[in-house]
Amino acid sequence: MRLARFRTATGTRAFGVVDGDEIVRLDRRVPSFESLLAAPVLPEPADERVTDVTWEPPMGDHAKVLCCGMNFASHAGESGREVLDRPTLFARFPDSFVGAGTPVVRPTVDDSLDWEGEAAIVIGRAGRHIAESVAWDHVAGVTAMAENSVRTWQLHSTQATAGKNFAGSGAMGPWLTTLDEAGRGSWTVTTRLNGAVVQHDTTDHLAFDVPRLVAYVSAFTPLRPGDVIATGTPKGVGFRMDPPRFLAPGDEIEVEVSGVGVLRNGVVDELVTTGSTT
Amino acid sequence: MRLARFRTATGTRAFGVVDGDEIVRLDRRVPSFESLLAAPVLPEPADERVTDVTWEPPMGDHAKVLCCGMNFASHAGESGREVLDRPTLFARFPDSFVGAGTPVVRPTVDDSLDWEGEAAIVIGRAGRHIAESVAWDHVAGVTAMAENSVRTWQLHSTQATAGKNFAGSGAMGPWLTTLDEAGRGSWTVTTRLNGAVVQHDTTDHLAFDVPRLVAYVSAFTPLRPGDVIATGTPKGVGFRMDPPRFLAPGDEIEVEVSGVGVLRNGVVDELVTTGSTT
Repeated sequence: MRLARFRTATGTRAFGVVDGDEIVRLDRRVPSFESLLAAPVLPEPADERVTDVTWEPPMGDHAKVLCCGMNFASHAGESGREVLDRPTLFARFPDSFVGAGTPVVRPTVDDSLDWEGEAAIVIGRAGRHIAESVAWDHVAGVTAMAENSVRTWQLHSTQATAGKNFAGSGAMGPWLTTLDEAGRGSWTVTTRLNGAVVQHDTTDHLAFDVPRLVAYVSAFTPLRPGDVIATGTPKGVGFRMDPPRFLAPGDEIEVEVSGVGVLRNGVVDELVTTGSTT
Repeated sequence: MRLARFRTATGTRAFGVVDGDEIVRLDRRVPSFESLLAAPVLPEPADERVTDVTWEPPMGDHAKVLCCGMNFASHAGESGREVLDRPTLFARFPDSFVGAGTPVVRPTVDDSLDWEGEAAIVIGRAGRHIAESVAWDHVAGVTAMAENSVRTWQLHSTQATAGKNFAGSGAMGPWLTTLDEAGRGSWTVTTRLNGAVVQHDTTDHLAFDVPRLVAYVSAFTPLRPGDVIATGTPKGVGFRMDPPRFLAPGDEIEVEVSGVGVLRNGVVDELVTTGSTT
């Protein structure tokens, strides 16, 4: 099953199951997207079907989003770093992501927006101190993530936080595919910039696979349905090209995760609103 | 004014204004704590007053919590680091904090829980790209934070995330004091371990003061009422003692911020619940 969040043509937030070109709305009989992740339900004939939607990131409303850096030796190598004995993790605020089809935002304060295609898992069953042996049972499914980074700000200090949290700089979706369809790992991740492949690897090459990541994260923080763990990006980011190549309006970035689908986003310059907002 | 979140004797979540030994409940006529931060209201005679409460962290329900590391030259020095040109930031999940009076949790997986007394500001007015010149207008008030760290896990990788996000490892409160009472900076931060002063400095010595932090953070992420920025800890953490001194059950840690109050917490060992929870 493909589980998705979206806005309808009238702007209503909703969620449901993707069925071909249609989406079956389940928000009338399932209390929340998080509930759907915990216990997916099958569509019924009476459920409304819609086609004209704006995708939203397929995660919980107040998700913890933990991203693993330096999880492919290939990317660590191009970055002059090494894979450590424990996962390198940083947190992203949910509003640093847009859904599929919505352009990611290049900030005004810095133009070093770079792509990072990744497979990300979405939690379906809550837990703390989850053993690796049962970790998959806590995963609802897998989605594609453009875990984009503003490189200059990522490198302002030892901590990547600022460069990883620009509003709308990353993307997720269009949906998550449940594990019965997507499989438990061995996902191929392909990133295309304007149609040309720039990243291509498989999660078989992760230094820390999904069970290890779930076990490590849940050792310090409780996981709940809708939380997200991004598994890391392979080599091929723009920052390591010669010369570096960053994203700009007019570019289209695609992240394809095998068995899941294609996340496609344009790029737009930030519309600056200075000072207080409500 | 002192604005606080708490649970009543019957466990109801509530918020209000601290008035001496009493708390005036405002949750019956203000829609949310975030609303109160945006527009504090004065108590009225008809408002219920309570005394027997369990403090909760004085922040928004889904707050962004950004903490600044290495913001005192004194602490950077004892850590063998230097203050950089830009703030060193990491994010903490709200559930990594307890309120005043509730013991902080020493994890089972590692016993290197260390204290970090800090002054933290709570946002009152939303904004993005907030200029330093108007940054104080976006701050509702200041509170005390025990921004405790699990040192071994903090050092697992280049990113401090894991060691900074153990559930219930830190504390905030008991309340935030609005700036008209607490002043705009120049707060003295004093940390006491079992009554003995271990950290003592003033925010006059911050490398990045509150306006600089608010401007820097809001350049990449929108701030909303209830979000928190912790200003960093001065020297005197247990990890840098010889031999290192970590927190253990039986210890009491106090963080006092001048003009605000005293945050006091015991320490308890984690009660392990393995596997799935709901």
